[in-house]
Amino acid sequence: MESNRVEAFSDGVFAIIITIMVLELKVPHGSDWAALQPVVPIFFNYVLSFVYLGIYWNNHHHLLKACGRVTGGVLWANLHLLFWLSLFPFVTAWLGENYASPARTFAAVPSALYGAVLLLASIAYLILQTTLINAQAEGCESQLALALGNDWKGKLSPILYAIAIASSFIHPWIAGGIYVLVALIWLVPDRRIERALLADR
Amino acid sequence: MESNRVEAFSDGVFAIIITIMVLELKVPHGSDWAALQPVVPIFFNYVLSFVYLGIYWNNHHHLLKACGRVTGGVLWANLHLLFWLSLFPFVTAWLGENYASPARTFAAVPSALYGAVLLLASIAYLILQTTLINAQAEGCESQLALALGNDWKGKLSPILYAIAIASSFIHPWIAGGIYVLVALIWLVPDRRIERALLADR
Amino acid sequence: MESNRVEAFSDGVFAIIITIMVLELKVPHGSDWAALQPVVPIFFNYVLSFVYLGIYWNNHHHLLKACGRVTGGVLWANLHLLFWLSLFPFVTAWLGENYASPARTFAAVPSALYGAVLLLASIAYLILQTTLINAQAEGCESQLALALGNDWKGKLSPILYAIAIASSFIHPWIAGGIYVLVALIWLVPDRRIERALLADR
Amino acid sequence: MESNRVEAFSDGVFAIIITIMVLELKVPHGSDWAALQPVVPIFFNYVLSFVYLGIYWNNHHHLLKACGRVTGGVLWANLHLLFWLSLFPFVTAWLGENYASPARTFAAVPSALYGAVLLLASIAYLILQTTLINAQAEGCESQLALALGNDWKGKLSPILYAIAIASSFIHPWIAGGIYVLVALIWLVPDRRIERALLADR
Repeated sequence: MESNRVEAFSDGVFAIIITIMVLELKVPHGSDWAALQPVVPIFFNYVLSFVYLGIYWNNHHHLLKACGRVTGGVLWANLHLLFWLSLFPFVTAWLGENYASPARTFAAVPSALYGAVLLLASIAYLILQTTLINAQAEGCESQLALALGNDWKGKLSPILYAIAIASSFIHPWIAGGIYVLVALIWLVPDRRIERALLADR
Repeated sequence: MESNRVEAFSDGVFAIIITIMVLELKVPHGSDWAALQPVVPIFFNYVLSFVYLGIYWNNHHHLLKACGRVTGGVLWANLHLLFWLSLFPFVTAWLGENYASPARTFAAVPSALYGAVLLLASIAYLILQTTLINAQAEGCESQLALALGNDWKGKLSPILYAIAIASSFIHPWIAGGIYVLVALIWLVPDRRIERALLADR
Repeated sequence: MESNRVEAFSDGVFAIIITIMVLELKVPHGSDWAALQPVVPIFFNYVLSFVYLGIYWNNHHHLLKACGRVTGGVLWANLHLLFWLSLFPFVTAWLGENYASPARTFAAVPSALYGAVLLLASIAYLILQTTLINAQAEGCESQLALALGNDWKGKLSPILYAIAIASSFIHPWIAGGIYVLVALIWLVPDRRIERALLADR
Repeated sequence: MESNRVEAFSDGVFAIIITIMVLELKVPHGSDWAALQPVVPIFFNYVLSFVYLGIYWNNHHHLLKACGRVTGGVLWANLHLLFWLSLFPFVTAWLGENYASPARTFAAVPSALYGAVLLLASIAYLILQTTLINAQAEGCESQLALALGNDWKGKLSPILYAIAIASSFIHPWIAGGIYVLVALIWLVPDRRIERALLADR
């Protein structure tokens, strides 16, 4: 079974999730800068979730490129990942809405829920990775080894998310900082590995 | 006529339906656990519909892979299936909304309508399957035989849906139980057939 | 220039338009049959628009399959068609909403606007067809001739739409009847041509 | 790394953005021409944004066709472009809503914000173009040279957008005029280059 259609379907879901989030940027009713102000925190939240989904799409892209043999288990592991990712617009909007409210700058529960969805998505990604490796008849080791060079990040992220969830109840800004930090961890060295991959050829 | 573009279009529709449902998870206005509570039943409904759409996508994937020759009749049989699936977000939201209301835990009519859409989608799938088989010039029997190994499920499901629709008016929880049961019937042994398919090669 | 990406993009737009329409089926607030009643006319409208979009997708599919060479003019002629099709959810919803209102069963202006979008889409399709034929370096005549066997329908439809628009102001039900009629004209003989195409091989 | 999946994902995002904008065309509550009137300016806004997205899709199509080798940097440059494009529905809706209000025909801040998103998208496109050129191991010069024949437009556009943003605060209609002008600059000669490309073969 080839991975073409799994990729096409996943690409569709990724594309929709990433664009649906922007629907949460509600059009303000006034027409001056003041009217735009409540949208600003929701906008930054949108940026963060966009980056996260971009990271997942990139990694998903690399993973399926390295090991393309797809079984029924892989299909469901993939749907499982997409399920948690599909909750991004919801948790992003809830976090953003409370972030924008005057009373509390950054509410604990929405922040913890945002972390919970990130945590469950990262676990779903690890499951997909393991299922894909097990599904390969012959080794796609060399390519996977490079992909697994990312593996410390895949294992560190859930731990950081768990810390962020707990710290949401101490001070939500700590959680926010961790969410940004994990995104940066994934963003930055990705390019380095890329160069290693290209040099290898 | 090849099935590539039919798959691409269907994948697009599947991807959109599956992600649009999450728009029904309305962002709560408060920021504590209590505010999240009415979303919980809608969430579980979303999970169930997500699983159903995942099952349909998987089966659709297998069906078109086994028998790829597409005629005008197949195009319309496919659109017919997609039509009923496109109603999933609507019936899921209606079921979820009433499920969440304080007065009645699980309303009869929304539950019956949910079952009706499931029933019509399952009949549409059987029609698509028959149309595809008839469209093949030479037999794709060996692969289809394996797919038709699933056929008892394809024939049992409409019967169970019909029972669920009727039982919605006795007690909606029975209907809910049947909906979960049918999803499990499709979920579990799919993997077993998969292994048989792989062993065959 | 190949047509693959034009098809992929068009498929995406078709898939989204066809599924977005279902968002206009607003979830009723009650939980009985009475609550469902105002949704019924909107539902039938949705069916009609779904069939129209299905017809356009089918024809688009055949057209690009027959003549695949794509120029800049074709890209814009295609976008032009997709533009008018993208207005389907809007006009469908407006027609449905008024259709459901107690005061007037079927309002004149929404019915005329629905016809206007159908008319403009059908003209856009004729432009796309002409642009595609002109874009081919060598003749794809044999396949196009069969596609142009549909041409009387392509030329009759705009006339019928124009009549429907005018008749909206006499009695909207006449317009509604014509919209259903045109859909049937396209639906039914399509299969006959298909069989001719298959017999030809 | 091939560009297929990048194209598929981008096509998905383009298709969704272009169709999501139509959701901002809110269905009017009345059923006569007067009820339709507030939708008219939003409609023209929609046309303009549709044309802009069409231009971006066309250029994106040509760019990835000319130089298909994709690196991690290209993936992020592409996501960066898609990010700014994803804000089109938001700024289009805000511009349209104020445009329709009785008090001020065309508000300064929404017009400037519309220009800012256009400006940032055009810069993102230049970054993507540069990243793609740098990513190619061997030169795809001949094709890129033709693409870069468009380059004066790519460099003029950001300047015109900047002027439009500033002029929004003098008189928003000037900004509106510039937005239409830039769209025309891209639309018209595209076909001329196309013909040059075809003549070249």
